[in-house]
Amino acid sequence: MRDSYHEELDDINACLVEMANSVGSQMSTATTALLDADVALADLVIAGDDQIDATRENIEQRTFTLLARQQPVAGDLRTITTAMRIVADLERMGDLAAHIAKVARMRFPDHAVPQEVRPAFLEAGNVAELLITKTATVIAKRDVEAAQELETDDDAMDQIHRGLFRQLLSEDWPHGIESAIDITLLGRYYERFADHAVSVARRVCYLVTGERYDSAVSSSSG
Amino acid sequence: MRDSYHEELDDINACLVEMANSVGSQMSTATTALLDADVALADLVIAGDDQIDATRENIEQRTFTLLARQQPVAGDLRTITTAMRIVADLERMGDLAAHIAKVARMRFPDHAVPQEVRPAFLEAGNVAELLITKTATVIAKRDVEAAQELETDDDAMDQIHRGLFRQLLSEDWPHGIESAIDITLLGRYYERFADHAVSVARRVCYLVTGERYDSAVSSSSG
Repeated sequence: MRDSYHEELDDINACLVEMANSVGSQMSTATTALLDADVALADLVIAGDDQIDATRENIEQRTFTLLARQQPVAGDLRTITTAMRIVADLERMGDLAAHIAKVARMRFPDHAVPQEVRPAFLEAGNVAELLITKTATVIAKRDVEAAQELETDDDAMDQIHRGLFRQLLSEDWPHGIESAIDITLLGRYYERFADHAVSVARRVCYLVTGERYDSAVSSSSG
Repeated sequence: MRDSYHEELDDINACLVEMANSVGSQMSTATTALLDADVALADLVIAGDDQIDATRENIEQRTFTLLARQQPVAGDLRTITTAMRIVADLERMGDLAAHIAKVARMRFPDHAVPQEVRPAFLEAGNVAELLITKTATVIAKRDVEAAQELETDDDAMDQIHRGLFRQLLSEDWPHGIESAIDITLLGRYYERFADHAVSVARRVCYLVTGERYDSAVSSSSG
């Protein structure tokens, strides 16, 4: 049987998994809002970000209370400090989904994403969904293998990102500067989303194996 | 007289101040590298980021050790968890300086920043320098007034950022898409740098006053 302290630790972890799922749902809705120029969906995502922020506050407060009351050591302490960092990454991923929704909203009723780069953003959306689903699994099951797969998925996102720039810089880009700015920022938001997923994965790997990877999200270029 | 535990806490805080100063120096060098198309300076900044990352690791490890050995409660615990978050913001600010240097490097021997937007980036660099200097003061002295000033400085950065977009979208922008992409990303890096400074300031305010502001860096738009 688990004591109430370890029950609380498990429950915080379950909340992190739930938060990852919410972030995934936000990102997937944001991508749809962007590709369909659906302002109602965009508004949903923008409003929904408050809930993600509130979840972060709640989890931060609970980790703080656990530290104060239980004064954990060793593995449990590492679990709690890891949770504190994961919750920051997840919240930032939620922000990025909201940023994408805001671009869709800003250009409505036009499409922010011209036809030529639609396939790239569709793919970026798919990779983002895959990333956050795996991130949830990594948190739930401390699945080191899934964590390592995330690195490959992140490479795929980087490739999509580079492809976008190639399209923007091709001689016959007909949509002008404003559209180029939108696409540059959107590409960056998807790329950063992937970086934060990798950061979470690396933190869980470190927790499980004790082996530190390069300093996570910060090492990403771009 | 202070015990060794509080000496260690003070020393961690001093390291955070030193880290903020290093980040300021990186950012200021990055701006010079950008405006002067100085590849040697750009390389310095890019190489120097490893040191910032190492400082983060070091401070994180020390906060972890303090938590494990001293099992602090109440105010001391809050100080340590605040330090854990500040160090993450500072490290990210260092990354952003390196990103700026990388754009300068990528366009060398050309200038990444055309003459028309040079004043905007000069100003962005000045505001960034002001922000990080105040951030260091906020950390060193728990100066709530300086922390509140940072919000105004952040508004100034947002205005510069919006001005950049206006310039890019003016009818007579002659520098094409590639330059627009560079400037969009550069503008974003300076803006995020300011956001993280505000995040640090808010965390220190919360530590001192117990009053929570909007959830820090995450609430920023863009």
